[in-house]
Amino acid sequence: MSTSLPKAVILLSGGLDSSTTLAVAKSQGFGIYALTFRYGQRHDQEIEAAVRIARYFEVVQHRIFEVDLSSFGGSALTDQMEIPKGRELEQMASHIPVTYVPARNTIFLSLALAWAEVLEARDIFIGVNALDYSGYPDCRPDFIAAFKTMANLGTKAGREGKGFKIHTPLIELNKAQIIKKGMSLGLDYSLTSTCYDPSPRGEACGQCDACQLRRKGFAEAGLEDPVKYQV
Amino acid sequence: MSTSLPKAVILLSGGLDSSTTLAVAKSQGFGIYALTFRYGQRHDQEIEAAVRIARYFEVVQHRIFEVDLSSFGGSALTDQMEIPKGRELEQMASHIPVTYVPARNTIFLSLALAWAEVLEARDIFIGVNALDYSGYPDCRPDFIAAFKTMANLGTKAGREGKGFKIHTPLIELNKAQIIKKGMSLGLDYSLTSTCYDPSPRGEACGQCDACQLRRKGFAEAGLEDPVKYQV
Repeated sequence: MSTSLPKAVILLSGGLDSSTTLAVAKSQGFGIYALTFRYGQRHDQEIEAAVRIARYFEVVQHRIFEVDLSSFGGSALTDQMEIPKGRELEQMASHIPVTYVPARNTIFLSLALAWAEVLEARDIFIGVNALDYSGYPDCRPDFIAAFKTMANLGTKAGREGKGFKIHTPLIELNKAQIIKKGMSLGLDYSLTSTCYDPSPRGEACGQCDACQLRRKGFAEAGLEDPVKYQV
Repeated sequence: MSTSLPKAVILLSGGLDSSTTLAVAKSQGFGIYALTFRYGQRHDQEIEAAVRIARYFEVVQHRIFEVDLSSFGGSALTDQMEIPKGRELEQMASHIPVTYVPARNTIFLSLALAWAEVLEARDIFIGVNALDYSGYPDCRPDFIAAFKTMANLGTKAGREGKGFKIHTPLIELNKAQIIKKGMSLGLDYSLTSTCYDPSPRGEACGQCDACQLRRKGFAEAGLEDPVKYQV
């Protein structure tokens, strides 16, 4: 990997969206600095998927950063609360679910911003998506725009006119379009992990919001999902 | 401490400004949830001071949260870079120094926001100060306003109209005014730790930006600083 490429920090959870986002950033000619968080999620399978994706795309650096959001509580993704299964898809966009982790993308983007400033990178990529999504407030375009404004006021680089750009290449795509884009960029979706509640052997539950949105996406794209489902 | 008081999250470093801010929040009738970060600072004396202050003001809860910003590098406060000594005071406000920690207040406020949302608190206090300060971009009023806008778009509580307020009670005070305010609220400044580079025995260096601003403040307030200085 040439070090002369412009650098970009990519938030990489190991899921479908963030892995596709990484593929997009790579295709745009960036040297990839992937950032994954161990934030107290209920299982480590996402992080293992992030490691596989980072290797697959030969990133310049992959950092796994510890920030224990589970100590604050308040989310089914970090607490022992039950993960909702079988929600209607129409419900998802209109109702913020118990899997919401308070201020998660704000925290993740803030840490990406710190790393980007140190790297002298100006580009941060996040795989948020405002169409086929779970209703999270911190996935919406107005939040991303407000984060960027704040970031450029709150950093040395931003104040000196070397503004940060927050790239959201998936924001207006539906799941099927995201999957087709990733496929066209050579992404192997068997490496990704989407499920909120996988079995210990790594099989996806098939019924949480994340699984449902993923399956619908593959079905609409007319493609086979390489991931194994329990149901 | 009654649990019926409205809750506020206070960023508490253990320094003069954040300790005064905590005293102000307490005097306004809030139940205090103090948040201190172990972020890879060069010494633990700040954290020990934060523990003393939290006890002194009988906070409801004091949380020390680990977030290792030193792993990103880029600051004299977390790296082995030399701390500047004897800078002219006029230089400080016009020039962002090497003690700047990339995106620090953005990260700290984001974590405070997460905790506040879980606590169902609407009030966050931060002791930033735009007069006698070290030139940091993330201490300025426009940054704080932009953070608040972003926070209310990026959280469930904010989207539901239960907006967060970011209180900056010191933002327009000079150091002498801050000290007088703290004294009037019963703050014992011998408990605080301000120096960027104290001796192993805890004596302040007297020459870093933080020490200089503090000493000038006590001098202008006509008060004696209870902290011991090496020089």
